Amino acid sequence: MFNTYPSKLLDNATAEFAKLPGIGKKTALRLALFLLKKSVEDVELFGNSLIELRRHIKHCKICRNISDHDTCEICADQTRDASQICIVENIKDVLAVENTRQYNGLYHVLGGLISPMDGIGPETLEIDSLIARLREGTTKEIILALSATPEGDTTNFYIFRKIGTLPVTISTIAKGVSVGSELEYADEITLGRSIRNRIRFEG
Amino acid sequence: MFNTYPSKLLDNATAEFAKLPGIGKKTALRLALFLLKKSVEDVELFGNSLIELRRHIKHCKICRNISDHDTCEICADQTRDASQICIVENIKDVLAVENTRQYNGLYHVLGGLISPMDGIGPETLEIDSLIARLREGTTKEIILALSATPEGDTTNFYIFRKIGTLPVTISTIAKGVSVGSELEYADEITLGRSIRNRIRFEG
Repeated sequence: MFNTYPSKLLDNATAEFAKLPGIGKKTALRLALFLLKKSVEDVELFGNSLIELRRHIKHCKICRNISDHDTCEICADQTRDASQICIVENIKDVLAVENTRQYNGLYHVLGGLISPMDGIGPETLEIDSLIARLREGTTKEIILALSATPEGDTTNFYIFRKIGTLPVTISTIAKGVSVGSELEYADEITLGRSIRNRIRFEG
Repeated sequence: MFNTYPSKLLDNATAEFAKLPGIGKKTALRLALFLLKKSVEDVELFGNSLIELRRHIKHCKICRNISDHDTCEICADQTRDASQICIVENIKDVLAVENTRQYNGLYHVLGGLISPMDGIGPETLEIDSLIARLREGTTKEIILALSATPEGDTTNFYIFRKIGTLPVTISTIAKGVSVGSELEYADEITLGRSIRNRIRFEG
């Protein structure tokens, strides 16, 4: 929309904002002008929080989740069930599973899914480190919690093959109709799976 | 969505992003995780561009537009017509008018519109500085380019009264049907105004 700015400083800040995903030139300008109305201290707090994040963030040496320390809070937590590992694609998925409060085991963050089309092979993912973890013998069950996409299925299958004869139970999260959604809006594949994987009432 | 983060650093950065207008907790997390994938240098460039903007930005001592110097580029530009002042609400409006490439005069940024409901009186706006500018005698015409809202109309009227007998021509930007839009979608007030303010073909 705007080609010339009255200030090089505004120009820089707007261009930097516009590099963020989902933020166009117009929104970037709006955000930069918003910061101009804030105090110097507030803007320093904002800018420095981003720089500190990038500079000092670590990845947990066990599960590859992000962490402020060498071992993340989840892996360090003695009250969690170390016999279970939930395998997820990325950090956001750890947060999503944690938020359900239905899981008390550990995680392993793959850092992506196998996708030959995008040049992502298994060697670029944290699969070798997963197998090494399983060889240690503490793990009794792994829960595959990857996306229900071709890439997710490929990765599931690859991990399944890699595990081979290691003595662990392998399970995958249930696919089915969303809780609270109306049946008529579910796509046929999801609905089909949720019929096939139906759960009998116990009693 | 997420209540607990595995990292205090991520927590801080996400909370700071979520303070920006139009950015919720979910988007804030997405942006923070996006920065984690960038190099330390890139993130430093981003964070510092915001801090530098806030620390070093100035307001032009003549027109109150933002500027890197005491006098903005527009006011300092000798090729511009110093006999015209376009009065706008904010910095974005300067950019919008500049972008039309239809105006070669100077500006005066009010910093808001009179709005008793929001507690914004004329004394909080740059109206006194405008009148002082007009008293200097260089200005022949002022163009009121404020929003077509009750607040804009009030501000227009207040400035009109304040100018009193000062020897300047006062004009306001034309209100009418948007260029390229179909007549049937124009609201009746806009359409009414554009009929009243019709322009005769010259020839």
